[in-house]
Amino acid sequence: MQGKVRQLGIEIGVLPVGQKNCITDVEGVQVGHVTLDEPLDQNGAYACTGVTAILPHGGNVFQHKVTAASYVLNGFGKTTGLVQVNELGVLESPIMLTNTFGVPAVTQGTLSYMLDRNEDIGLTTGTINLVVGECNDSYLNSIRACPVTPAHAIEAIRQASAQTAQEGAVGAGKGMMCFGYKGGIGSSSRIVKVESNEVNYTVGCLVLSNFGQGREFLAEHYKVSTTQNQSTLSPTDGSIIIVLATDAPLSSRQLTRVIKRCGIGLGRTGSHFSHGSGDIVIGFTTAHCIPHTADQLVETRTQLREDHPIMNQLFTAAAEATEEAILNSLSQAQTTTGRNGHTVQAYSFQQA
Amino acid sequence: MQGKVRQLGIEIGVLPVGQKNCITDVEGVQVGHVTLDEPLDQNGAYACTGVTAILPHGGNVFQHKVTAASYVLNGFGKTTGLVQVNELGVLESPIMLTNTFGVPAVTQGTLSYMLDRNEDIGLTTGTINLVVGECNDSYLNSIRACPVTPAHAIEAIRQASAQTAQEGAVGAGKGMMCFGYKGGIGSSSRIVKVESNEVNYTVGCLVLSNFGQGREFLAEHYKVSTTQNQSTLSPTDGSIIIVLATDAPLSSRQLTRVIKRCGIGLGRTGSHFSHGSGDIVIGFTTAHCIPHTADQLVETRTQLREDHPIMNQLFTAAAEATEEAILNSLSQAQTTTGRNGHTVQAYSFQQA
Amino acid sequence: MQGKVRQLGIEIGVLPVGQKNCITDVEGVQVGHVTLDEPLDQNGAYACTGVTAILPHGGNVFQHKVTAASYVLNGFGKTTGLVQVNELGVLESPIMLTNTFGVPAVTQGTLSYMLDRNEDIGLTTGTINLVVGECNDSYLNSIRACPVTPAHAIEAIRQASAQTAQEGAVGAGKGMMCFGYKGGIGSSSRIVKVESNEVNYTVGCLVLSNFGQGREFLAEHYKVSTTQNQSTLSPTDGSIIIVLATDAPLSSRQLTRVIKRCGIGLGRTGSHFSHGSGDIVIGFTTAHCIPHTADQLVETRTQLREDHPIMNQLFTAAAEATEEAILNSLSQAQTTTGRNGHTVQAYSFQQA
Amino acid sequence: MQGKVRQLGIEIGVLPVGQKNCITDVEGVQVGHVTLDEPLDQNGAYACTGVTAILPHGGNVFQHKVTAASYVLNGFGKTTGLVQVNELGVLESPIMLTNTFGVPAVTQGTLSYMLDRNEDIGLTTGTINLVVGECNDSYLNSIRACPVTPAHAIEAIRQASAQTAQEGAVGAGKGMMCFGYKGGIGSSSRIVKVESNEVNYTVGCLVLSNFGQGREFLAEHYKVSTTQNQSTLSPTDGSIIIVLATDAPLSSRQLTRVIKRCGIGLGRTGSHFSHGSGDIVIGFTTAHCIPHTADQLVETRTQLREDHPIMNQLFTAAAEATEEAILNSLSQAQTTTGRNGHTVQAYSFQQA
Repeated sequence: MQGKVRQLGIEIGVLPVGQKNCITDVEGVQVGHVTLDEPLDQNGAYACTGVTAILPHGGNVFQHKVTAASYVLNGFGKTTGLVQVNELGVLESPIMLTNTFGVPAVTQGTLSYMLDRNEDIGLTTGTINLVVGECNDSYLNSIRACPVTPAHAIEAIRQASAQTAQEGAVGAGKGMMCFGYKGGIGSSSRIVKVESNEVNYTVGCLVLSNFGQGREFLAEHYKVSTTQNQSTLSPTDGSIIIVLATDAPLSSRQLTRVIKRCGIGLGRTGSHFSHGSGDIVIGFTTAHCIPHTADQLVETRTQLREDHPIMNQLFTAAAEATEEAILNSLSQAQTTTGRNGHTVQAYSFQQA
Repeated sequence: MQGKVRQLGIEIGVLPVGQKNCITDVEGVQVGHVTLDEPLDQNGAYACTGVTAILPHGGNVFQHKVTAASYVLNGFGKTTGLVQVNELGVLESPIMLTNTFGVPAVTQGTLSYMLDRNEDIGLTTGTINLVVGECNDSYLNSIRACPVTPAHAIEAIRQASAQTAQEGAVGAGKGMMCFGYKGGIGSSSRIVKVESNEVNYTVGCLVLSNFGQGREFLAEHYKVSTTQNQSTLSPTDGSIIIVLATDAPLSSRQLTRVIKRCGIGLGRTGSHFSHGSGDIVIGFTTAHCIPHTADQLVETRTQLREDHPIMNQLFTAAAEATEEAILNSLSQAQTTTGRNGHTVQAYSFQQA
Repeated sequence: MQGKVRQLGIEIGVLPVGQKNCITDVEGVQVGHVTLDEPLDQNGAYACTGVTAILPHGGNVFQHKVTAASYVLNGFGKTTGLVQVNELGVLESPIMLTNTFGVPAVTQGTLSYMLDRNEDIGLTTGTINLVVGECNDSYLNSIRACPVTPAHAIEAIRQASAQTAQEGAVGAGKGMMCFGYKGGIGSSSRIVKVESNEVNYTVGCLVLSNFGQGREFLAEHYKVSTTQNQSTLSPTDGSIIIVLATDAPLSSRQLTRVIKRCGIGLGRTGSHFSHGSGDIVIGFTTAHCIPHTADQLVETRTQLREDHPIMNQLFTAAAEATEEAILNSLSQAQTTTGRNGHTVQAYSFQQA
Repeated sequence: MQGKVRQLGIEIGVLPVGQKNCITDVEGVQVGHVTLDEPLDQNGAYACTGVTAILPHGGNVFQHKVTAASYVLNGFGKTTGLVQVNELGVLESPIMLTNTFGVPAVTQGTLSYMLDRNEDIGLTTGTINLVVGECNDSYLNSIRACPVTPAHAIEAIRQASAQTAQEGAVGAGKGMMCFGYKGGIGSSSRIVKVESNEVNYTVGCLVLSNFGQGREFLAEHYKVSTTQNQSTLSPTDGSIIIVLATDAPLSSRQLTRVIKRCGIGLGRTGSHFSHGSGDIVIGFTTAHCIPHTADQLVETRTQLREDHPIMNQLFTAAAEATEEAILNSLSQAQTTTGRNGHTVQAYSFQQA
């Protein structure tokens, strides 16, 4: 656990970073983790996994929805909730991350949490759409044992805060690996400025990294230590879930355009969006607060002038923040041992 | 040419129709036709085709764009311009209709028309996106001879007016056939009302119909004459271009949802979106006037509350207006003779 | 419960039906139901819901996958598993149907079932993609109480058989309503023949119907009883899940084209794909058996010549079977009472 | 014009390149250019543009179609023909490239060429789908004057050969600019090997590059000369058309997956897929020869086992070949002067 790569002298891109260099630089956004790290039996079964919750704001997301979008870079994944996000362009629940087989339990837990806080759901109003992303942590975690429970999801939401998010082998990132080293949760942010309007927008990114084979690309493109830990050959292709938050006023169509650029950042770390990888981006903007119920017929939404140079800056911000968040997921992770004594080493970036 | 089907006692759906029962019921919308109907040589070659222009408003569409969307029901077609409509959700030119091989000439003519009126295009600003839809009229028209010229496109735009559009074997519809009978241009409209807000929205539809084999479905579902003309077996599957206009304030995402329902109306006439058919919907709303250039950073757009019952009414309107526009393209068309003496009979609806 | 509508003299379309007029006419396909019908407390809480499993074949679907596709008619729904179906064009698990809040439990149960039968999943091979569709049965079912458990999903799979599927208020259909009357599970099939090749293909459809307001359209288009039960106003828009099975050799791209036509059948019953409706089609063909692991580099897949008339017949079959399956879900359902004494009446079709 | 970047010591990626390091390394593929370079009047109007044709094979592409796919990275573009490519997954004409306003003329010319060679089109069989990509060369070319004619398109097809394609300021690339320097046509190729099967597949890429502002990213990531020409600020965002060819047996779905990875290569050169950019990929494989007419009902197609490691190699090849083709479009271009004396300098890569 070496700190964020920026502290190690690795600067990605040209845009300034936010104060915390974290998705929580977007005002209102909160992140919570629950980490499982314990033997499940005497024979090597081990819970090396967890849950991470990203809240667009501290209020009731079902009652106050936000504009959202999703984009599938490669669809070998089991993320749930995207059908409705794509149709309506809104998010009405926290975004939850966990391991692949933890999706049902986390969906159930998040459902319980939201039902508790919204007595109308399923009675006087419709149902609720839950968004849960996942990666496969089966090298370190006894994924078949399904150690994640609904209660863990509720706890992750409760733990959420607007502080700098913990990174590395934490929450849903506990058992993930990236380029043969320990990956997991990473975050970064960017500020785009419109001088003439004295306006700043923040773009924050949080990733659950679990992809990539071989450190060659990393070594060539970023400063790395000459004394490197040994990498582990991942048995499968892995995945990455990328969550992008912003406070820029964007329609869901515009937001789709912005989050599409997260793939550029992913590609720059050396990924080719492997066949067996669920590479999925979920984005939201806190710019609009969309009430669940309203009497009005017509609403007004703000959105950026599409041809304003700020759009290209947001594209750049999405690519840069994604790339740096992935590197942070590596630099912030510590060597981790899980099921059957499987160990994945931390990646050593060179000190500046 | 028997008039609109409603005059024949065939009422489609439950919503009230607009004053003209035409796409031009949407305020500002204009339609223009140029019809070609002449022998090309002594050996049977014949120009039985044309061009139809649909203008979202009477002004400069490049300078004052409108919100737009497209939806492909079946993609065996050569419509051009949809890539940019899908990306940006705007329309910046008239929508032009013609025969399949007339697309390049009509694109060229529309380009010339727009360049003449916008001296900045290609010099101090970017280029322009042109939308041209097409169907294959090769049974009646010598399509290989490419009788449509750029000048015809310009003329169709110039002819455009806000009056009730001519229907049947006119403009791009001159050589089209539908269910083995004479088809072509048809139009219809619907009014959706929000009593409590004292608000009316208009939905108008114009089709270029050129699909379907066999009158069985028609006969079963609509009142038809017992003394029917003979149908012609179309050599290919045909196509339909559906243009939907409205003045309801919709985002391009919402508009996509509305125009998707045009397929319901098409299906109700007996179509199964044949393999060889280019069944394409292009929609726009006149609710927003989007200037080509603007200094502002943020704009506000009105859109309907997604959960307001009006949305479902708009869906119904799209389905109903499409179905009725198709029937009008049949009832308004007259028996037509084209190349090599090929004749396609008018379809006889039963008088009420 | 009046039998299938065909027995009542209502014939949809022109193609011949299969022997059972059921999705199980497609060889190998099996359907299983578990129905919950019991009070949950003394205060009106009631489990009026269930689970339905559709198996593409009787073997191990993970080891022997089938070609699949999905199509979203309207995405206000919580169906899970479509991201991977869309990316890879394969199905590797049973298709499960249940109520909206039953999705996590049913996913969990199906996961357990598949893990039990595949010891390699999550250890020496990757994970598994589960497909679970849903509708909201909250008028009759205490959906917030989440009465469906993982064990119910396992039981539904175990109950699956190749016999004529039970229809109406059974399995996932127990608590569903359609056009204000009792809906639920319905099924139908079609045979398409290629005389010259002495080849028959079967298209089978099973729906979970839970959509529509008002019987007007039904009454106008289908023969109905003059003495009709009273309809119930659904508090929300409802949904429909459509499962289409065939044995015709189709690529996933071709299959997508076929299942898109299910929307035509849905539209012909009077639906306009309501805003609040999750109208989703999932299709598969049993023509290919795709092994989970294989040493070969290149595989050969059969597919229909795209321009063979059989393609249009398959399109017709998809539309017809969907329309008739929906009507069967009505005619086969019986009046049902659920939570708080809520009762939804059966719809009375006119006897032939 | 400094040769390909590989000769300058810049090696992109890890896979071996084909013999010509060109799209024509894919057997059968041919490339032809027509270049316009002449004053149009005495007042600075200048034709600095052209046409490039990419033929999947030397035969009649309409009679012998190939499997194809398209992918839109950013849709601010006017490429035509993609609707049908997406629906059917086939290409039945050469892929043509030109300037934005040359699209109608090039479509018309290609249509004439294909009609001349296929007397059945539009008479006894259906029509033909033409694919024309474009970028905006208005800084150097008098784009409003539309100097490209249908005859130029025909000539480009006739010029096509299987030799190493000319690169830089040639054909459609004549007036294009990239990162403020002279861009245009570039090409590269990769070989993927399956040792155990003694099989080699070739992936070839040809780009029409016209994007990017500022050389900073280039300078940081690739070896560049210390004495650099001066860059030109492009007035608009520009575009890139990427054509990917392979001989690997892929379904159109698989091919879509492969060409999606071209965006990774584009992103690695510093692009963020600018708002005003038409960044479009068109791919085809020569592995299948699909006859226009056939009596058979069922055909067999070869495709790669989706989980074979070769898929990831193809992904890598697509990214690498795209990146290198873009760099070649820079290194092979020479300083060019066009309309009103506008000059765009060649970019100087550092000699190895």
